[in-house]
Amino acid sequence: MKLILLIDILGTVAFAISGVLTALNKRLDPFGILIIAFVTAVGGGTLRDILIDVPVAWMRNLTYVYVIVGSAIFAVVFRKRLGYIRKSLFLFDTIGIALYTIVGVEKGIASGFPPVICVALGTMTACFGGVLRDILCNEIPIIFRKEIYATACILGATAYFLLHNTPLKEDFIVIISGAIVIIVRLLAVSFRLSLPNIYTKQEME
Amino acid sequence: MKLILLIDILGTVAFAISGVLTALNKRLDPFGILIIAFVTAVGGGTLRDILIDVPVAWMRNLTYVYVIVGSAIFAVVFRKRLGYIRKSLFLFDTIGIALYTIVGVEKGIASGFPPVICVALGTMTACFGGVLRDILCNEIPIIFRKEIYATACILGATAYFLLHNTPLKEDFIVIISGAIVIIVRLLAVSFRLSLPNIYTKQEME
Amino acid sequence: MKLILLIDILGTVAFAISGVLTALNKRLDPFGILIIAFVTAVGGGTLRDILIDVPVAWMRNLTYVYVIVGSAIFAVVFRKRLGYIRKSLFLFDTIGIALYTIVGVEKGIASGFPPVICVALGTMTACFGGVLRDILCNEIPIIFRKEIYATACILGATAYFLLHNTPLKEDFIVIISGAIVIIVRLLAVSFRLSLPNIYTKQEME
Repeated sequence: MKLILLIDILGTVAFAISGVLTALNKRLDPFGILIIAFVTAVGGGTLRDILIDVPVAWMRNLTYVYVIVGSAIFAVVFRKRLGYIRKSLFLFDTIGIALYTIVGVEKGIASGFPPVICVALGTMTACFGGVLRDILCNEIPIIFRKEIYATACILGATAYFLLHNTPLKEDFIVIISGAIVIIVRLLAVSFRLSLPNIYTKQEME
Repeated sequence: MKLILLIDILGTVAFAISGVLTALNKRLDPFGILIIAFVTAVGGGTLRDILIDVPVAWMRNLTYVYVIVGSAIFAVVFRKRLGYIRKSLFLFDTIGIALYTIVGVEKGIASGFPPVICVALGTMTACFGGVLRDILCNEIPIIFRKEIYATACILGATAYFLLHNTPLKEDFIVIISGAIVIIVRLLAVSFRLSLPNIYTKQEME
Repeated sequence: MKLILLIDILGTVAFAISGVLTALNKRLDPFGILIIAFVTAVGGGTLRDILIDVPVAWMRNLTYVYVIVGSAIFAVVFRKRLGYIRKSLFLFDTIGIALYTIVGVEKGIASGFPPVICVALGTMTACFGGVLRDILCNEIPIIFRKEIYATACILGATAYFLLHNTPLKEDFIVIISGAIVIIVRLLAVSFRLSLPNIYTKQEME
């Protein structure tokens, strides 16, 4: 499906740019920026492929490599003006997360893993690029402190898995579960929802 | 062997709780706590399985997943009272380390690796969950600074490997080498033994 | 080729010692020092082998293990006098990087990966041991901030790949592309060349 390819590329662009922004913030040099862009964009999928022991996707398909290098150069050159496209980036990012989640669940199902593991693989595909980016930049992964989209991924991945066993058409299932990821994330951001705070006031001091 | 399964589960509980405690200390949110619990409990075994290129154990056997999620919830809810079971946790942890070490050596032997590598795989299985926990929490791994049980694992793993070539029965070998890990660790903790300090007073300032 | 084996060992020595020095700087204990020496020396190749899904080299060939343990003990004992052999170490390190780069490209070609990926695998083999060393020591990888030799590796790896398709003899190709890595690095260090600074004065404050 051409649409999926387009979404995949837009998601990769958004992830790579998020990597570049973190790297610029840490004043990394061009080589460091490129590596962080790369890891942010493909890190989650790479970990997934290693865990399920299938060939790592980006090593055989250079589209990702070119898209990431292009996005990184673009983001460095226009870094002062990225504010203008912040909303577009956020949208690409959200759509990318939805797609990455679904790709992860699908790969898990294709390799015959149990449901919980498939959901975990979907979430990992969408979230662990950011985790690796933060580790390489010597930060506690932001997704562990201020949950941004892991819940959205878990819900979307679960929906995909449940619908997968119904007679619904594949395309339709992708759209529904992708929409769940996107809507939950947009709602969470709009209403500043987050996971319940488990710390007492005293503990937070 | 049912006993081994029980020990394995108690070890997983202790490791997961140790992960939760570190995560709580860093004020991570529920998603972060769960991931750290998971990585602490299965990280060492996962790295081992990837290095020797066999399927990752917890991805096919959901017992671990349920035990870890249950332990994490328990530890978060009762975190103020975990002090009361600190001794039990320490015991589970020590027994868990012994078992993890043996499982690692056994897997190395089964894949035909040389002795030194088998001992390294056993030690890695027991110790690297904690290393990954500390990296994700942005700390230098505690086991690199203040050696707690790596030596116990290395001694127990070496014993297992040596006895493995004798006509002794498997169960007996497991018990002996497991006991070595446990006793060395208990002695080290009781008498505050650690690896020799290689730094001069001047260097430590 | 005996020469290649010798260079490989000298490179491993230099990498292991660089790991020991970082670990000593962080006041790690003997176990931590050994692990960091190990990771620095074999981390890049391990990541490469996992990504291309071939057996991890040092797990079947104990030469590396012995060389690393020996180098680590040597470096700890003589740490006050390592200054005297700093130039030799730098030379070993540079030659080691050149060789690691070539080994990485060769393995990529042997597994049939596309050119860009082969160059990336060569660079990764030479550079990621240091990245893992810095992550384990809780630092932003130095190679991301102050590019030291990644460019040299990329140029040498590209040369190797290009020459590989000519009728030139293998030995000759190895020598040329290795020399490129070495010369570029020596020039960069002598003339304090680095990647262009992309930050404005204002941003660096």
